[in-house]
Amino acid sequence: MEQTIYRGLEGVHIDTTTISRIDGQRGELIYRGYDIRELADKASFEEVAYLLWHDDLPDRAQLDAFHAELAPNFTVPEPVFEAFRSMPAATHPMHAIRTAVSLLGALDPEAEGVDDANVHRIGLKLLAQFATFTAAYARIRDGKDVIAPDPELSVAANFLYMLNGEPPTPAATRVMDVALVLHAEHGSNASAFVGRATASTLTDVYSAITAAVAALKGPLHGGANIGVMQALEEIGSVEAVDGYVVDTLARPNGRVMGFGHRVYKVVDPRALILKDVAKHLAEESGDSKWFEMSLEMERVMDREMAKRGKQVKPNVDFFSASVYRMLGLPRDMYTPIFAVSRISGWMAHLYEQYANNRIMRPRLTYDGPLGRTFRPIEQR
Amino acid sequence: MEQTIYRGLEGVHIDTTTISRIDGQRGELIYRGYDIRELADKASFEEVAYLLWHDDLPDRAQLDAFHAELAPNFTVPEPVFEAFRSMPAATHPMHAIRTAVSLLGALDPEAEGVDDANVHRIGLKLLAQFATFTAAYARIRDGKDVIAPDPELSVAANFLYMLNGEPPTPAATRVMDVALVLHAEHGSNASAFVGRATASTLTDVYSAITAAVAALKGPLHGGANIGVMQALEEIGSVEAVDGYVVDTLARPNGRVMGFGHRVYKVVDPRALILKDVAKHLAEESGDSKWFEMSLEMERVMDREMAKRGKQVKPNVDFFSASVYRMLGLPRDMYTPIFAVSRISGWMAHLYEQYANNRIMRPRLTYDGPLGRTFRPIEQR
Repeated sequence: MEQTIYRGLEGVHIDTTTISRIDGQRGELIYRGYDIRELADKASFEEVAYLLWHDDLPDRAQLDAFHAELAPNFTVPEPVFEAFRSMPAATHPMHAIRTAVSLLGALDPEAEGVDDANVHRIGLKLLAQFATFTAAYARIRDGKDVIAPDPELSVAANFLYMLNGEPPTPAATRVMDVALVLHAEHGSNASAFVGRATASTLTDVYSAITAAVAALKGPLHGGANIGVMQALEEIGSVEAVDGYVVDTLARPNGRVMGFGHRVYKVVDPRALILKDVAKHLAEESGDSKWFEMSLEMERVMDREMAKRGKQVKPNVDFFSASVYRMLGLPRDMYTPIFAVSRISGWMAHLYEQYANNRIMRPRLTYDGPLGRTFRPIEQR
Repeated sequence: MEQTIYRGLEGVHIDTTTISRIDGQRGELIYRGYDIRELADKASFEEVAYLLWHDDLPDRAQLDAFHAELAPNFTVPEPVFEAFRSMPAATHPMHAIRTAVSLLGALDPEAEGVDDANVHRIGLKLLAQFATFTAAYARIRDGKDVIAPDPELSVAANFLYMLNGEPPTPAATRVMDVALVLHAEHGSNASAFVGRATASTLTDVYSAITAAVAALKGPLHGGANIGVMQALEEIGSVEAVDGYVVDTLARPNGRVMGFGHRVYKVVDPRALILKDVAKHLAEESGDSKWFEMSLEMERVMDREMAKRGKQVKPNVDFFSASVYRMLGLPRDMYTPIFAVSRISGWMAHLYEQYANNRIMRPRLTYDGPLGRTFRPIEQR
């Protein structure tokens, strides 16, 4: 009997969920029943995090309580900054973020429990602390002082404040908030899946989130937004886009970053929202180069894919790159910012996994030698 | 159409492998074609690590070269020890081990490449360094000085030397070596699987191994050997075993640690080998209590499972607990010792994954609300 092999676990359903649903045919994404377009337009990141962790959006009292619970948690213990200071300045920031989460686990005397109350306690800590240690790492590797969090600020505003050392404009805060809402959750993508698989051994929350960060770092996952910006910078001008795309696609395994998605067969709704945001930013800032290059790349990809009888559309990473660039964020921080948002979705997945757990233990089909005879080393 | 859901990914084959094969019906385990019983009896851990990373066992020159490559890699950079010193003494050692691997990634300027040569370079570092930082953590949290590695020693001997501060006896080294051989590799268990899934985003080796350590920590996986010893200590005497087993099984979800395995339907061959080792250690040391309690527990479990029409046999964790106890190793270091060995198997899985990669992106079946209408917070 030939064994079916599910490489990449494509099409394999691992469990039920009530967190989010992607309709890849229609290009729709909902978080607990709410359309992402409405949430991005009208909800704050904190409202969305609350939604992902509970059954529904908070009322005013619930949201105020959630803010009040988050506020004291922005503070990060000093050993995390000490670890950052031991790292060479060229270290990929995701190594720093992953190490920060892992070290926070070592420093939390109550790390082990995976009951709802403890998972929620750690979730609140991490939701706030991701913003703090991510901003702190960016400053430390640049030789700057760490900025203490302002507990009055939202996650989006606090992150920009701790990164830049000055209060962000309302417009910048709003763009950051939209970006955080859009990146908060996306089903059993590689990092959420790795988080769930890690948690399935009933290991602690910090372990599961450390593993999720480790997976997000990859260039085929969260690392892709850095790849998009690298490509745009390398190309350098609107005129050079066409040649770049054609040349890249002509290479064996040539891949234009920021296009295509395992689940979306039409355009990713998050890409459309970010495209609008990028358009506004380009108009307001007068710095339209990155947005125009992105539009041109989308056009050329459409044309080239049509020649091949394919439709390959921009994904969330494609326009987030130019949005972050226009916000003045350092390129190698794009993936860490993804993590600042996605911690909210990861935690929602951990609630589900711990509540109804079965250890993940798939199989590999053995295709190697059998019945080899051991010979002592002198006879090999 | 009802969607099939593979909880725990049971029976799902994710790829082919040439690393190892478990025959759960016959109770057989082979590493690249060699029976685990022969390897445990005749091969060193270094020979087995070489076997797992290459096509075959090394000849003398290859093994000498492998030792020579490992020797300089035992040294661990100081920031790892600094991070250990920042941790409370009661920290679960697996938090320390996970943080060490993550921090090593941040400190390695060549961390990113996932080509064969770089994966092998990092594999050699980690195979040696796991022994060093694991022993160092045990000493640091006890307020003792770190012992520098002796590059002349094997991984097994070096680990015991760096842990205890004195050269181990040949007998103790041999037992440690057998334990390392037996724990080196076991297919796509949760930690190897999490390592592969993490690597499938093309993230770096340190990220993938950090994630694997995070998964190994769980009480349903590598943490089980600690659970076995906790139970034996709690029981306290051979006479009390029967009542403990009966009472535990009578509780809802009551579980006797160290028994049963997803894949083995008969006895785990590694358990049989460790049972022999434990018997010899008990005879030699005169400290037979833990071994006798283990035998009694096996007998009572057989009887109780037979009443339920089941066969549930001891797994690798069951006898490793008493073996480690008789070697004088601290209980909470049992899972870290598992990692000191399993790094060899994890690396073999990373070679396979990077060489023929597809990102792991399974699905979840959405079972939550649809079409909810967003209302402003004042109207909720």
